[in-house]
Amino acid sequence: MQITRNATTTAPGPGDWFTGAVYIDAVAAPMEPARVQAASVHFTPGARTAWHTHPNGQSIHVTEGVGRCQRRGGPVETIRPGDSVFFEAARSTGTAPVPTAS
Amino acid sequence: MQITRNATTTAPGPGDWFTGAVYIDAVAAPMEPARVQAASVHFTPGARTAWHTHPNGQSIHVTEGVGRCQRRGGPVETIRPGDSVFFEAARSTGTAPVPTAS
Repeated sequence: MQITRNATTTAPGPGDWFTGAVYIDAVAAPMEPARVQAASVHFTPGARTAWHTHPNGQSIHVTEGVGRCQRRGGPVETIRPGDSVFFEAARSTGTAPVPTAS
Repeated sequence: MQITRNATTTAPGPGDWFTGAVYIDAVAAPMEPARVQAASVHFTPGARTAWHTHPNGQSIHVTEGVGRCQRRGGPVETIRPGDSVFFEAARSTGTAPVPTAS
């Protein structure tokens, strides 16, 4: 049993994954045989992911703010706190917050 | 891309998994090849899990309240919001909130 106490560190998202400022806090990084990685990802206004894929898919759950997500070539969807999105394995997707300034 | 809008349903935790009242809201239930299952689990005071194992381990992240967790035979640990715990695969563990009444 491994406890990580209230981590106060956050790391900027790498520039090849994101445009704009994004901060990533680790939530779960378990050991084998687990494969899951969980993080709390904070997008500043205007930030977004690059188009990308996940080999086993990705699930997101919105905890604050209003965002947009899209499967490449599909409609842009607005997502709000409480919404969950599952992105199928190996399909190109992107995620961004809704801009707060006009 | 599958969006689940702010689900308003919660389900009582099964009696063979828990003692006391526990409510489970699904957060992520993705498709193959993903194996992860994520849920927001709400313990009422006095509720606790039965001793149990997870074949690939389990990660929890405390979002509210104060709880206790234990690997069977190990020390009881108090966990607070922001804390994460990784329970290794196939080791018997339990989780409970700290009682609020004396």
